[in-house]
Amino acid sequence: MHAEGHLAAHFAELRHRAGDARPLPQALLDALRSLLGERLVTTRPVREHHGTDISSYPVTPPDAVVFPHRADEVVAVVETCARHGVPMIPFGIGTSVEGHVLATSGGVCIDLSQMNRIVEVNASDLDVRVEPGVTRKQLNAYLHDTGLFFPIDPGADATLGGMASTRASGTNAVRYGTMRENVLGATVVLADGRVIKAGGRARKSAAGYDLTRLFVGAEGTLGIIVELTLRLYPIPEGMSAAVCAFPTVTAAVDSIIEAIQCGIPVARCELLDTLTVSAVNRYSKLSLTEAPTLWYEFHGTARGVEEQATQMQEIARARGGLDFAWATKPEERSRLWQARHDAYFACLQLRKGSRMIATDVCVPISRLAECIADTQADIAQATMPIPLFGHVGDGNFHLMILVDPDREDDLEEAWALNTRLVRRALAMGGTCTGEHGIGLGKREFLVEEFGAGVDVMRQIKATLDPANLLNPGKVV
Amino acid sequence: MHAEGHLAAHFAELRHRAGDARPLPQALLDALRSLLGERLVTTRPVREHHGTDISSYPVTPPDAVVFPHRADEVVAVVETCARHGVPMIPFGIGTSVEGHVLATSGGVCIDLSQMNRIVEVNASDLDVRVEPGVTRKQLNAYLHDTGLFFPIDPGADATLGGMASTRASGTNAVRYGTMRENVLGATVVLADGRVIKAGGRARKSAAGYDLTRLFVGAEGTLGIIVELTLRLYPIPEGMSAAVCAFPTVTAAVDSIIEAIQCGIPVARCELLDTLTVSAVNRYSKLSLTEAPTLWYEFHGTARGVEEQATQMQEIARARGGLDFAWATKPEERSRLWQARHDAYFACLQLRKGSRMIATDVCVPISRLAECIADTQADIAQATMPIPLFGHVGDGNFHLMILVDPDREDDLEEAWALNTRLVRRALAMGGTCTGEHGIGLGKREFLVEEFGAGVDVMRQIKATLDPANLLNPGKVV
Repeated sequence: MHAEGHLAAHFAELRHRAGDARPLPQALLDALRSLLGERLVTTRPVREHHGTDISSYPVTPPDAVVFPHRADEVVAVVETCARHGVPMIPFGIGTSVEGHVLATSGGVCIDLSQMNRIVEVNASDLDVRVEPGVTRKQLNAYLHDTGLFFPIDPGADATLGGMASTRASGTNAVRYGTMRENVLGATVVLADGRVIKAGGRARKSAAGYDLTRLFVGAEGTLGIIVELTLRLYPIPEGMSAAVCAFPTVTAAVDSIIEAIQCGIPVARCELLDTLTVSAVNRYSKLSLTEAPTLWYEFHGTARGVEEQATQMQEIARARGGLDFAWATKPEERSRLWQARHDAYFACLQLRKGSRMIATDVCVPISRLAECIADTQADIAQATMPIPLFGHVGDGNFHLMILVDPDREDDLEEAWALNTRLVRRALAMGGTCTGEHGIGLGKREFLVEEFGAGVDVMRQIKATLDPANLLNPGKVV
Repeated sequence: MHAEGHLAAHFAELRHRAGDARPLPQALLDALRSLLGERLVTTRPVREHHGTDISSYPVTPPDAVVFPHRADEVVAVVETCARHGVPMIPFGIGTSVEGHVLATSGGVCIDLSQMNRIVEVNASDLDVRVEPGVTRKQLNAYLHDTGLFFPIDPGADATLGGMASTRASGTNAVRYGTMRENVLGATVVLADGRVIKAGGRARKSAAGYDLTRLFVGAEGTLGIIVELTLRLYPIPEGMSAAVCAFPTVTAAVDSIIEAIQCGIPVARCELLDTLTVSAVNRYSKLSLTEAPTLWYEFHGTARGVEEQATQMQEIARARGGLDFAWATKPEERSRLWQARHDAYFACLQLRKGSRMIATDVCVPISRLAECIADTQADIAQATMPIPLFGHVGDGNFHLMILVDPDREDDLEEAWALNTRLVRRALAMGGTCTGEHGIGLGKREFLVEEFGAGVDVMRQIKATLDPANLLNPGKVV
C-alpha cells in the first residue's frame, strides 16, 4: 500500500474511507447501549477525534466510540464486537504518530482513557499497578510524595497503555530502558474475550514464554491491555542538566559515542540540530546558541552526578563543545527540558499550517554520525524545512518533515526521503522504528527489516485473532 | 504428571523410558550420516551424556546425537527430522536444572557446543555476535583485552544459547538484568526449517512483535537459536567485593531490601545461610564466620564504588551486620566469589551420594524476608540437609534439597516442600521460577501461576511447531 510513489494515493483512500457510511449492526449498537448507556457515542465530532493521531494522515473515524470503566466492560465490548465480526481499535489519548488508531476498516473504538485508576503503589518493591488510561504525568504527580518516579518520557503526556502498546521510550531510555524493560506484567483481554495475566511483580522470572513482551509493542493487534504493572525508580539524590553547543552535528554525536563507550551512565542525552534550536528559541523565548546542541541530564548521588558531568564535559571539550550551561535547581531543569519537549510544537511553526511526517530510525551508535551526515545531505536537497533531533544516546533520531498534507508532491518527497533513510539505517544494522512503532506507515519497512520473521508475526496474529478484528491493518 | 505424591512415579517412568529401544528410521539415520558423517553419534555413553543435566532426574537419553558446525547444517537436520516426525532436543552443555534436555520422547539431540565461534565483537557498540555454543567464560576470556565484559553469570559455565533459552540470570542480574534484557537479537531455525532473524543491533526498536523475547526463555520448544547478538558492558573502573555476616537471615534480607529501596546500584548481592557458609568453609578451606552472610560486589567509578560501599555498610551495621571483609584486588575478589560459586559443589558434600532438587522461587522484595522465614520453618522439619542461598537483591533464592534419588520418601518429601514453597511465593505475587525455567519439573506450577495464559503459550507452540517436535514435553 505504501510503496514509493503511492503515499498520495494512500492518503486519498483514507480520505475516501472517512466519508463512507458504514452503519454498524443495530443489534450491536443495542447491546453496547444496554451495556454502557451514554458511554457509547456515535456523534461525528467524537468519532473524528478518535480517528486522529498526531501524524499527517487524514482523519479516519471509527463508526462508534465506547468508554469502558472496568476490565469486565472491556470483555463485554470485545465479546459483543467479536460476535458481530466488527473491528475494535483500542485508544489511549491519541498521541501516536504512525496512524495506529485510524479506523481504516471502521468498527468500534475502545477509548480506555476513563480507566485511569492507579490501583496500587508498592513503594517498597518499586512497582505500581495502573489501569491503561493513566497518563505518565498523572502517575508521576501521584507518586510525588513517595520519592519514586516512572522514567519513561516520550514527550507527549501519553497514556501508559498506549505507551506499552507502542513500546514507547523517549529521552530517558538511554539510562532506564524503554517500555520493554519497564513493564513487569499486564492483564490483557484477548480477541475472543479471554482475560490473561502475563508477567507479574517478581523482578525476574523464567516461567514460560514471555507473553508480557509479546503484548508490549503489539499496538493493540493481539489483545487489549486493561492493567499494567510497571517498574518505578527512586528519585535520584542528585540531578543536574546542561546544554552544550557544538561546531557540527558530527562533533556532538562523536562526543556521545565516546561517552557511551566509556560507560558514563547519562540519564538523558538529546541532540537538536541548528534549525531545531532556532525554532525552540523562537517558540520558547530562549537565547540558546544556534548550533547543533546536546541536552544532558545526569542522575545519581550528589558526587556521582558531579563525576559524570566532569567526564562528559571533558569529552565535549575535546570535540570542540562550548561551555556547559548548567541547570541544577528543579525549576531550571524543568525550564531547560520544557524547551526540548516543545521542539515538536516549535518546529511545526517553521511552516505555517504544516503537519509532520516523523522519521524514527535507530542505528548502532558507531554508525550514528555517518547516518546523520548522509541524511543531512538529503535534507539539504529538500524543498521543505526538516528539523532533526533525537535520542542520540540510543542511536535514535527523528526528522520532522513538515508537509502540507494537501500537496501530493510534498507527500511523495517526504516518503522518498523516509524510504532512503530507513534503507540507510537497515544497511547499517539499524531498525526502521526506534520508538514510534509500525502502525499504518511502516508495514512495508517491517518486511524489509525482518523478511520471514514477519510471517511468524502473522502466524501469531492469526492464532490469537483469527477473525482479524483487533486493530486490523496495523503492524502486519 | 507431577501432582503431589507422584514424583517417585515420574522418576520410575523416566527410568523405564531410558531402557526403551526406540530405533530411529534407517532413512533418517542415513540422511543424517550423509550430512554429518562422524558427527552423528549413537553410542550409549554419548547418548546418556546428552540425556543428563544437573537435576536429580534419571538419565533419559536421546536415540542419536548430532554435532552441527553451521546454521545450514542445523536447518538440514531439522528438515530431516521434521520429515520423519522425529523429536529434536537442542543441547548446549547440559548444565540446566529442570530436566530441559531429557529426551522424554526420544529423538535426536542437536548438540550445539561445536558451533562456538565468536562471530563479531563490535566494541564501539558494546555488542557481540556469537554462535550458541560459546560459553560465558569463553566469551569473557575472548573479550579480555577489549575492556568489555558480558555480565550474566549463572554460576555454571553454560553456553550462551542455553542461557538464552532458559532466560538465565544469576549473581549479576540485580545490576545488569537477565538474558531477557541482554539478548539484542537472535537467528532462529524454526520447526519447519525456516530461518528467521529476530531483533537486531539497534539498542531499541518498536518494529513489530518482540520475537527476540519470545525465543529467549522458550527452552528450545519454539525454535533453535543458531546465533545471538548480546549486549556488552565496559569493565567498570572500580570494583570491590565484600562479605558481611548477620545475626539472622531476616536481618541480612532486611538490609538488602533497604539498599534496593535506596537505589544503591549494587552489582551483586548474594545470601548464604549458615549451613551453606559452613559447607563452603569446608569445601573451599575458608574460615568465614558461620552465620547468615551476604556477598556483595560494587561496580562503578572508583569514587562511586566507595560511596556505594559506605552506604551499604551503614545499612548493614544498623541491622547488626558485623564488619565488612573487603576484597579489592582482582585475585582476592575472584577467590571470594569462587567460594560463592562453589556453594553448589560444597553443599552436595553435605550428604554423600546425594543429588539436588533445586527450588527457584522469586518474590517481590518486600515479601522476601517473610518468604524465607516461613520456608526456614519448613526446613527445620525436613529429614535431609537443605542449604538456602540466592540472589536476594532480585527476591530470588534457592533451596538445595539433597535427596537420595533412589529413596521414594526423599522425592516425595522434597516435592511436597517445593510445592508448599511455590504456592507461598505465588500467594506473595512471586513466580515459580526466577531463573531455572520450567523444563519438565514445573509445568504444573506454570499452570498455577498463569492459568489461561498457558493456553496462549500452547496456542503459540501449536502454531510454530504443529507436530510438537521441538523439545516436546517441556514448558507447556
